[in-house]
Amino acid sequence: MYTTSTQIRIHYALTDQMGVVYHGHYAQFYEIGRAEAIRELGYSYKDIEAMGIIMPVVDIHSRFLRPAKYDDLITVKTTLRELPVHHKIVFHSEIYSEDGALLNTGDVTLYFMEAKHMKRCEMPAALKDKLVAYFKETEE
Amino acid sequence: MYTTSTQIRIHYALTDQMGVVYHGHYAQFYEIGRAEAIRELGYSYKDIEAMGIIMPVVDIHSRFLRPAKYDDLITVKTTLRELPVHHKIVFHSEIYSEDGALLNTGDVTLYFMEAKHMKRCEMPAALKDKLVAYFKETEE
Amino acid sequence: MYTTSTQIRIHYALTDQMGVVYHGHYAQFYEIGRAEAIRELGYSYKDIEAMGIIMPVVDIHSRFLRPAKYDDLITVKTTLRELPVHHKIVFHSEIYSEDGALLNTGDVTLYFMEAKHMKRCEMPAALKDKLVAYFKETEE
Amino acid sequence: MYTTSTQIRIHYALTDQMGVVYHGHYAQFYEIGRAEAIRELGYSYKDIEAMGIIMPVVDIHSRFLRPAKYDDLITVKTTLRELPVHHKIVFHSEIYSEDGALLNTGDVTLYFMEAKHMKRCEMPAALKDKLVAYFKETEE
Repeated sequence: MYTTSTQIRIHYALTDQMGVVYHGHYAQFYEIGRAEAIRELGYSYKDIEAMGIIMPVVDIHSRFLRPAKYDDLITVKTTLRELPVHHKIVFHSEIYSEDGALLNTGDVTLYFMEAKHMKRCEMPAALKDKLVAYFKETEE
Repeated sequence: MYTTSTQIRIHYALTDQMGVVYHGHYAQFYEIGRAEAIRELGYSYKDIEAMGIIMPVVDIHSRFLRPAKYDDLITVKTTLRELPVHHKIVFHSEIYSEDGALLNTGDVTLYFMEAKHMKRCEMPAALKDKLVAYFKETEE
Repeated sequence: MYTTSTQIRIHYALTDQMGVVYHGHYAQFYEIGRAEAIRELGYSYKDIEAMGIIMPVVDIHSRFLRPAKYDDLITVKTTLRELPVHHKIVFHSEIYSEDGALLNTGDVTLYFMEAKHMKRCEMPAALKDKLVAYFKETEE
Repeated sequence: MYTTSTQIRIHYALTDQMGVVYHGHYAQFYEIGRAEAIRELGYSYKDIEAMGIIMPVVDIHSRFLRPAKYDDLITVKTTLRELPVHHKIVFHSEIYSEDGALLNTGDVTLYFMEAKHMKRCEMPAALKDKLVAYFKETEE
């Protein structure tokens, strides 16, 4: 298992007239969490694109438990429960309030694809090598 | 079953550097589709809020099949497959390209809640009366 | 002078917790107005990009007179007061409420640039030919 | 003069198909800069709203010099050049790339207003007292 955490301050643009964060903006929080999870492996998503690989989102499932509000400092906890299989990778996100309440969960499935031919491919080996270390004890 | 359709033109702000619509924006398309579905019943979501009822989103599941692109004129087909049970309503959205290809599907669950006490409530009767007509033949 | 009008329905994502449209979203309304202004000349901005030309925004000045609100059907009136000079074009936008009150004005300056070399260029001749007709009486 | 700086990491949602940050999103960067400028005075904008005062934006002027790109870590430098006069306050924002190039400038004018009666009012005294210290040497 591989888990990282990152914090996001809610600014006004993210609120709606219900006085809470608009539900459609949580996908951005998952994205920010994923980007930081990848960065902590020593690569950025920008590096992955520079290798000619893009990672389109193919499925998102969000559950909204409690609202995030303006000026809240939320924590996005991003987890890979398993190594990517073939072209597919699933990130689990949990979003917490400053006092530790679970606000939202999101499961996001992405594909690895060669940008040039738009063909599915494997996770870049350099990245997978970094990741594999986190799964050794339980899986090998 | 109750189904309506509405069209949306993709503007630049909705695209990302992959050259397609950013995945996080589809929640807005579902929202626009729901609003028009409600409006065609003779009420607007604004009217519902004026009755003291809000409809927070509690669950979204999106599947991304093909990308929408800049300047595309997409069609959002919004369906209620069943009448809301108690405080819960589920809208099914299908998003189509101009040549009829299915791009995306979204299942969005919302609750009816009294804004004042933040308590779950039933769908307003006036709205339910309008809706019930669409379910008579098959269900009664 | 060349003027076109287009309507936009305000959806929930555009509101903020002040209960009005978030000020940062008006740039999108100007963009939608510009795109329709260009489309009515017989070309789309997409066509312009297909010619290898992009139009980055270099300056925006917005004045906020009255707020737009959820579910409002606003009108964006987009005007070219003069033909583009060299690489520069200025669109004037006025945003009106359904009952005709002026809500917002925006002056947006863009450059024509060859995407390949990122060099400033003139407005595509095919587009300029269409536009010139609207300025004949007063200017020639 | 009162100046603060804050950093923002550009995520994918902020990019557009030109491969740069969409021009309309800079208003959010100015907003984030303002919020941090106020916070460093010992109050948050949330506190100001809790006092019954809102600060609608009435004017924005943005100049786009160089594009910000995906994954850039930009710095927003926010400056008050003078104390607010009556109900009006003007924030100057400068946005810099990680290597110090000036990307964008924004002048944002806001009003102080009593939310209850929507009447213009003065800056809250508690906040003004904090701010006045930064202007003493040059102005008194």
